[in-house]
Amino acid sequence: MSVTAPEGFVASAAACGLKASGATDLSLVATADGRPVAAAATFTTNKAAAAPVNVSRRHLQATAGRAAAVVLNSGNANAATGQTGDEHAERMCALVAHELGCESDEVLVCSTGLIGIPLKIERVTAGIPTLVRARAAGAEAGQAAANAIMTTDTRSKQVVVPGRGFTVGGMAKGAAMLAPNMATMLAVLTTDAAAEPAMLRRALQDAVSRSFNQMTVDACTSTNDTVIVLASGRAQARAAAAAPAGDWAATPAPAAASNWAGAAAAGPPTEVELTDALWEACADLAGQMAADAEGATKVVRVRVVGAADYHEAAAGARKIAQSQLVKCSFYGQDPYWGRVVSELGSAGIAFDMDRVRITYGGITVCRGGVEAGDPAQAGALAKVMAGDTIEVVAHLGLGTGEASMITCDLGHGYIDENMSTS
Amino acid sequence: MSVTAPEGFVASAAACGLKASGATDLSLVATADGRPVAAAATFTTNKAAAAPVNVSRRHLQATAGRAAAVVLNSGNANAATGQTGDEHAERMCALVAHELGCESDEVLVCSTGLIGIPLKIERVTAGIPTLVRARAAGAEAGQAAANAIMTTDTRSKQVVVPGRGFTVGGMAKGAAMLAPNMATMLAVLTTDAAAEPAMLRRALQDAVSRSFNQMTVDACTSTNDTVIVLASGRAQARAAAAAPAGDWAATPAPAAASNWAGAAAAGPPTEVELTDALWEACADLAGQMAADAEGATKVVRVRVVGAADYHEAAAGARKIAQSQLVKCSFYGQDPYWGRVVSELGSAGIAFDMDRVRITYGGITVCRGGVEAGDPAQAGALAKVMAGDTIEVVAHLGLGTGEASMITCDLGHGYIDENMSTS
Repeated sequence: MSVTAPEGFVASAAACGLKASGATDLSLVATADGRPVAAAATFTTNKAAAAPVNVSRRHLQATAGRAAAVVLNSGNANAATGQTGDEHAERMCALVAHELGCESDEVLVCSTGLIGIPLKIERVTAGIPTLVRARAAGAEAGQAAANAIMTTDTRSKQVVVPGRGFTVGGMAKGAAMLAPNMATMLAVLTTDAAAEPAMLRRALQDAVSRSFNQMTVDACTSTNDTVIVLASGRAQARAAAAAPAGDWAATPAPAAASNWAGAAAAGPPTEVELTDALWEACADLAGQMAADAEGATKVVRVRVVGAADYHEAAAGARKIAQSQLVKCSFYGQDPYWGRVVSELGSAGIAFDMDRVRITYGGITVCRGGVEAGDPAQAGALAKVMAGDTIEVVAHLGLGTGEASMITCDLGHGYIDENMSTS
Repeated sequence: MSVTAPEGFVASAAACGLKASGATDLSLVATADGRPVAAAATFTTNKAAAAPVNVSRRHLQATAGRAAAVVLNSGNANAATGQTGDEHAERMCALVAHELGCESDEVLVCSTGLIGIPLKIERVTAGIPTLVRARAAGAEAGQAAANAIMTTDTRSKQVVVPGRGFTVGGMAKGAAMLAPNMATMLAVLTTDAAAEPAMLRRALQDAVSRSFNQMTVDACTSTNDTVIVLASGRAQARAAAAAPAGDWAATPAPAAASNWAGAAAAGPPTEVELTDALWEACADLAGQMAADAEGATKVVRVRVVGAADYHEAAAGARKIAQSQLVKCSFYGQDPYWGRVVSELGSAGIAFDMDRVRITYGGITVCRGGVEAGDPAQAGALAKVMAGDTIEVVAHLGLGTGEASMITCDLGHGYIDENMSTS
């Protein structure tokens, strides 16, 4: 179950021939009745943003945060395709809208694949009617939609998170760590919670900043990155209908307390509840991306603690996590902490070498800025470095700021995946 | 000929056992009479700067820009070695000063090798007397000193540049592009030009910013990077001695005009003349590093033109040159310009996709932000990508700012060199 888990959503997939393999390459997530609901999105900050990013952003502005569907294609990023690319993205939305019976502006669009190759729009337009007509509720439809956005992913990424009286579902393709060749990360989330667009937008931004934005492979910002959420409000509508008229409004709190995730929970979620559920879904999908990191052999969590403040901790963690040299060391299972301090020293943050302590998997390798390896722990350290996941912590000893980043190693697999697009 | 080419300098090398191979690992450049001359240096900006960087910086401050010698070791970076590391670097200087008969503060020190490993100082101190006593003028001594600072370099890097009545010599080990494992770049320049320390410092900073600082491999800033210049002033002293008393001071300009690089040229160089000669020497050494890029198969010059200003052009060129994805494409000989525009779009500079034109080896692959590949040029483009050197130019169409960066490809060689220090 994924995007179809929350009430009020349908999904589907189709193959239109964008992928040479013949695999499904069109995906749809829509409201069950084809009517718009509250929607929000976060997009890449890249100024070379792809056509679908430009079009989706415009549509969300035009509707003040409402959408009835998201149409996605894999096999081509529709990026660096000029005005024609924008027209193609608009046509995809218009066709879906026509089939669903909603407005063009109420359809959002995402693409993933190579940059700079004109989209074979006639294949897409030929496939969209089939795609829309195939839409259905249920787990199978959600699975099909999640499969159709995969590029070099080896597994689809799906999630369901229960909230207090509502559900969040999601699907993603992720590239952040596994296929930077197709460098895009796309995610579509659905929820049956009721939320105004403004609150939904704030909740999504917060959730994304604490999940997807804390991962890095190669410091490259895709032209297509998009995370979209649609909120149907069906859970509250159902709860209201099931309860005696006026009842939940009069005594919401006790019912809610005893009814966590229950169908009869009272009232719409608070912003904190919604944010937490979206964050949990995003973090789960980000973890699935990390676990499917094809080009990498290890997932590494880099934590910086004791920084002057959160922002300095985050800058330090990002500098380490993006370092080619540090990442090569992980690939070689070499606990070469000298590269970690070198990155911290050039991260543009407050840094006092004499206070630094570094641990790999909890084993201290540097204390007071100098070597602190205990020969008796060499075996344990080798075991840490041989693991699939490694946690590196840099203690700066300056303040209370802390932050972390998820990254992976840099090895031959990354080179092989990214050296050629042909 | 290198550091011993300008008048007034001697050099030497010795093996003290820091390198397991037994190769020379101590290097000396000194004034012929052991007396201090004008000196300047640029150091890494890394806050985790190595002990020799801290010590050399202190010494230059204490002497207000004068030095009699530079002692260098390879095989250990003496970085992340705490207070003990500083003491070791000071002892190296004190021993050299003792042998030369100058003050400790008049000796500068550089180290290159692994970070975080205590320096075997007893080996270094045992080797220094031999090193200093072996000092000699001439090409052979310069060659020996250049060899002794090599780490994974396959060739020594030396240069001689004639100026107007003076000479600049230099040696370097470079790592910037070839052995980021030992990530340090060291260079020692000598000149027989006369220059006050302040002018020498400005000239060096300018020369370095337009040469070494326009190269990147992996965006990692070493803990040990150092460029030092010593100016003996001997050329002017000799010219003054050879000329009738008072003569050159009275009629400097005509003599100079007819005596470019001649021994009897009149007067000290202007700041522009000195800067140009230092820049030429630095650029030559940087080129030698690029040409010896072990871990790489190609040298790539990235130029950004038509940016809003110089700083934006430089930021754009740096973002492209540091991109793992772009560099993987060079390795795979894939002219995937989509990654170039994606980097420009996320470089934080003014950018208008519709105006962008990209060329590889002069062949336009993107115009107006979209694909512009001419099928008839496919063969020529493949030939460009197969070359040892590639020039990529991004025309932004916004202004007159332009800048370039030298980088290399990212392939299996880099991984193999950097995955493990053992």
